[in-house]
Amino acid sequence: MKLIIGNKNYSSWSLRGWLAAKQSGLSFEELTVHIDGDDWQAMKAQGGEFQPSAGKVPVLWDGDVVVWDSLAILEYLADKVGRDRFWPKDDAARGMARAMVAEMHSSYLPLRRNCPMNIRARVAVDLTDDCKANIVRILGLWAEARARFGKGGPFLFGTFSAADIFYAPIASRFITYGIGVPGFAQAYMQALWEHDWMQQWVEAAMAEEWTISQFEVGSQS
Amino acid sequence: MKLIIGNKNYSSWSLRGWLAAKQSGLSFEELTVHIDGDDWQAMKAQGGEFQPSAGKVPVLWDGDVVVWDSLAILEYLADKVGRDRFWPKDDAARGMARAMVAEMHSSYLPLRRNCPMNIRARVAVDLTDDCKANIVRILGLWAEARARFGKGGPFLFGTFSAADIFYAPIASRFITYGIGVPGFAQAYMQALWEHDWMQQWVEAAMAEEWTISQFEVGSQS
Repeated sequence: MKLIIGNKNYSSWSLRGWLAAKQSGLSFEELTVHIDGDDWQAMKAQGGEFQPSAGKVPVLWDGDVVVWDSLAILEYLADKVGRDRFWPKDDAARGMARAMVAEMHSSYLPLRRNCPMNIRARVAVDLTDDCKANIVRILGLWAEARARFGKGGPFLFGTFSAADIFYAPIASRFITYGIGVPGFAQAYMQALWEHDWMQQWVEAAMAEEWTISQFEVGSQS
Repeated sequence: MKLIIGNKNYSSWSLRGWLAAKQSGLSFEELTVHIDGDDWQAMKAQGGEFQPSAGKVPVLWDGDVVVWDSLAILEYLADKVGRDRFWPKDDAARGMARAMVAEMHSSYLPLRRNCPMNIRARVAVDLTDDCKANIVRILGLWAEARARFGKGGPFLFGTFSAADIFYAPIASRFITYGIGVPGFAQAYMQALWEHDWMQQWVEAAMAEEWTISQFEVGSQS
């Protein structure tokens, strides 16, 4: 399998696709292209490996099978290795996890625009009211998941799951923009940050030298 | 099971959730609330059955389990009745279907804003360039799915699947706003429109007396 992703510092949807590939336990090759860099433009112009996704990342190639979009990639991998590796077994927990992941996938545009992922940065930003409402909503979902279903471990539904894969870039934004969060959320974010795969990703993001001044993360999925 | 949906004429995400419930083969009760009507406001204010979704539709209650968001509802139901009822069996077909559904779930905001679902209406509208680009992209995906995987029937992947559930409201928009489409797409849209469940939904939408002047479908999911 080959996973095409964007810059690790900026591409939140790539992080989700990459964590899903890691969680599958399958081996995969990764190809990082610079968002809007020459390699990106060249691949788009060639109409090659980017063609099915119309130039977006992440894209997974599994032999002749191509899957784009982070959520579709996660589900395709869950089809291959079994649902239980990604989703809680309990119906009520899985129902909530599925709803939270879908909400992350389609929503929170104000937060995504106001606070684009930028792992290396530590900056202050004026939060719009819509963005603040997104943050309150997310913290409410985290609180409920942790309280009702989080007994078995430090993650949203106890053990590391699709929900953590989808909300990991949110934790990164909270850190970058210094968003104050309650203690339970700090503890969750710390567990996420200390996860081996997050450490690998963050280290690679820190080492990247590509910088973009204006990047609207919301346009990728 | 109980499915809470919005007005059938306007709520494209409700149509997706409802078609998913039909496709599951399970029996369910449906509760239609008027979008932004008194019943809607009352349910939001009570913090009752709408509370988990923050006042959005559709919402599925399965005993004590609650699932919101049309895609999460579809996947939760697929967990219950088996994936094959919703997704193609072939890996390449399923990979593409999953990617198309996810793209519909997170994208096409220009089309959703420019041409909100309004089943009863037949109106002309000026299409923005972004909206036209969405239409071209969708027709390209439909063409590829039909050509590569549509041999077994008139739907995107042959037999009726999650992909048709997610693109049905797009067909409704194309009809409402008189969008010119090539012959293969006309044939597909006709098959979709003649499907029993679509006929039931459209008939109910036609009979609704609730009218809203401004409704941004894009805000629901």
